[in-house]
Amino acid sequence: MHYGYFNGSVLPTDQISVGVTDLSLLRGYGLFDYFLTYNGRPFQWDWYWERFRNSAAGLRLPLPFGKDETYAVVMDLLARTGQPDVAFRFVMTGGYSPDSISIGTPNLMILTEDIHPVPPIQYEQGIKVILDDYVREMAEVKTTDYKRVILKAEEIRAANALDILYHKDGEISELSRSNFFIVRGNKLITPNRHILRGITRRTIMELAQADFQVEERPLLLSELYEADEAFTTSSTKKVLPITQIGELMIGNGQVGIRSRFLLERMDELVAKW
Amino acid sequence: MHYGYFNGSVLPTDQISVGVTDLSLLRGYGLFDYFLTYNGRPFQWDWYWERFRNSAAGLRLPLPFGKDETYAVVMDLLARTGQPDVAFRFVMTGGYSPDSISIGTPNLMILTEDIHPVPPIQYEQGIKVILDDYVREMAEVKTTDYKRVILKAEEIRAANALDILYHKDGEISELSRSNFFIVRGNKLITPNRHILRGITRRTIMELAQADFQVEERPLLLSELYEADEAFTTSSTKKVLPITQIGELMIGNGQVGIRSRFLLERMDELVAKW
Repeated sequence: MHYGYFNGSVLPTDQISVGVTDLSLLRGYGLFDYFLTYNGRPFQWDWYWERFRNSAAGLRLPLPFGKDETYAVVMDLLARTGQPDVAFRFVMTGGYSPDSISIGTPNLMILTEDIHPVPPIQYEQGIKVILDDYVREMAEVKTTDYKRVILKAEEIRAANALDILYHKDGEISELSRSNFFIVRGNKLITPNRHILRGITRRTIMELAQADFQVEERPLLLSELYEADEAFTTSSTKKVLPITQIGELMIGNGQVGIRSRFLLERMDELVAKW
Repeated sequence: MHYGYFNGSVLPTDQISVGVTDLSLLRGYGLFDYFLTYNGRPFQWDWYWERFRNSAAGLRLPLPFGKDETYAVVMDLLARTGQPDVAFRFVMTGGYSPDSISIGTPNLMILTEDIHPVPPIQYEQGIKVILDDYVREMAEVKTTDYKRVILKAEEIRAANALDILYHKDGEISELSRSNFFIVRGNKLITPNRHILRGITRRTIMELAQADFQVEERPLLLSELYEADEAFTTSSTKKVLPITQIGELMIGNGQVGIRSRFLLERMDELVAKW
């Protein structure tokens, strides 16, 4: 059973609802964040909190309370689920608007959800993604705007793919909800702009320091042809190999040893979190 | 007192609320429309319905029911307000999502609201707007995405302006929630792309046929310098003169006779609607 916090109350999630003058409903004005717990502790809490704070600042919404109070709410909700580990979703909106366009007092929801792990076969075989000529507006702020990938859902399915890889003017940015890396020799390369700065991305860049030359820089579409491996990172996906992008096989089309190596490092880190 | 329809029920608007797995709340996936009634009848209902249908198709959401059933709901809600004329807001979302990203059965809200008329002084003096180098994604679909203008609210206020005028690559598109026209001699010119096709825009273009040469075409930023008059159109604003754009006075900086003429034609039309 999942519970959620909404503006001071804690309720079963299916009893939480938002009034129709909320600015995210009327005007798409909202932000969110999402993280997992491991061994009963929020993974990389400090970094998630910092990002959530930055997103709120990016939409000019004041946070209703601070880091420690929020952490207490998180731990209370986790305890109520009766599960050792869950996903957390924070959603903050522009609040109830007096005139359907002006910001009100932000509405904040903190929700627990089941974790939906990636099927093992995707780690064994890697996934296919397709290219999409697009760059997200305000990619650096974790707004709720995901219209693009929802509109592309049919096209993705029809291509037997699982996601889209955004690129614009020859430059790769990110997948719809996760970051992108390529491996070339001992180099690990990931885009540095037009992206949401993922917490798993940051974790992997740190874990890779000892064994890779990590480059955070503009990544060209043309570099896909020279990549040995590619993978995507997110809270849920951890390090998920990408073996095909559109019609292009990455490297030899198999999951590479370096992607596996980084996934193992990630699994070790979360096991002892 | 205002009532709203939500998925088969009619309730006082302040008792209508939406569950937290709604895709507009979680992923900004929603559309809306907005129109007024005059003399107890929806203004340009046929055109609004057609646009709402097109927006739903643009977001690939099936309409839960047809035009006549919707009209019956509208008339029922209007009767319940006890007011002769109100504003209607339709909001349709991607529905409750099973996994926070897939479309569910759409949630449809039909709400009545008070009309907020434009203060008379704005018609007498005209308004100031400021330029914004931006073009809306999917401008032709009436999605709920209005983050841009909400983020610019302070900048607009600080400039003593009332709205922003979007332009990109030297081409004007629209204001944040209304269309844009310039008058030059007996020519009426309005952008034909990167815009939401306003119903009031269409009404004015029809009303103007007898007295103006109406041009619907790309409108360049540089043409502002040669404009005699400028105005914006929307349901609420009707024909609202714009006398200043950034630091540029339009024409002589006063409300022009052609803008007044078109507002009078509009007022005549709605008076006998």
